[in-house]
Amino acid sequence: MEIKFKPIGIIHSPYQRMEETPRQGSFSPENYSSIEIFPQYEKGLNDIKNFSHIIVIYFLHRSKGYSLLSKPQRHNELRGVFTTRSPHRPNPIGFSAVKLLEKKKGILTVSGLDALDDTPVLDIKPYITEKDSPFKNSVV
Amino acid sequence: MEIKFKPIGIIHSPYQRMEETPRQGSFSPENYSSIEIFPQYEKGLNDIKNFSHIIVIYFLHRSKGYSLLSKPQRHNELRGVFTTRSPHRPNPIGFSAVKLLEKKKGILTVSGLDALDDTPVLDIKPYITEKDSPFKNSVV
Repeated sequence: MEIKFKPIGIIHSPYQRMEETPRQGSFSPENYSSIEIFPQYEKGLNDIKNFSHIIVIYFLHRSKGYSLLSKPQRHNELRGVFTTRSPHRPNPIGFSAVKLLEKKKGILTVSGLDALDDTPVLDIKPYITEKDSPFKNSVV
Repeated sequence: MEIKFKPIGIIHSPYQRMEETPRQGSFSPENYSSIEIFPQYEKGLNDIKNFSHIIVIYFLHRSKGYSLLSKPQRHNELRGVFTTRSPHRPNPIGFSAVKLLEKKKGILTVSGLDALDDTPVLDIKPYITEKDSPFKNSVV
């Protein structure tokens, strides 16, 4: 079974290389990126200014191959790749919950996105606290 | 540009139809699903029991087409599809942050997953509060 997607937009970010993307503190004011949604999808952004935070799903286009065991950032031991945020994974899909600062036509300005420049965007979703903050909802 | 992915596993859930999936309260104890990771990817789950919550990214396989304007659940007005969690979107990718209850070989038992039975899984990531709870980090 093969699943096919097409980019709906592209990320413009200050990061050219994986080593440059922030690990923590990615919501610092210097960390602005813009997300350009292609004109044919722009209408899908209607009313997005009602949301303070959005989820961005993207294609980790610079990922090359993967290993099922991987070293997480700042760790030395090998772990299962699904317990890391390594870009080198069987399906190189990236996910970030980011703060929406501005929308002008098809361009969203956000902070907290640690994606590389030119990253293809696959989906934008509203961040809904009740749904997306599991610690608020868990039956402990 | 076409981006291709292959499922790494499949979701077994109590929900056969979209209308049955929970909207809120999805972390209730009755809402158990299991995620079967295919044997060739099982090693990628090593150490996942260190995480209480995980992110599941999946293919909304029952989605059929989309409109850029959509009615969110329990609302009557049309909104941009990227401000809704409708399964009918340009790239039908689903996302849930869920509670990890158990791991036995390649099977993860979770609560809080509102996916349909037989949904193909694309990726599993650890849920990292500092990274994934934007309200904790935002520069307001």
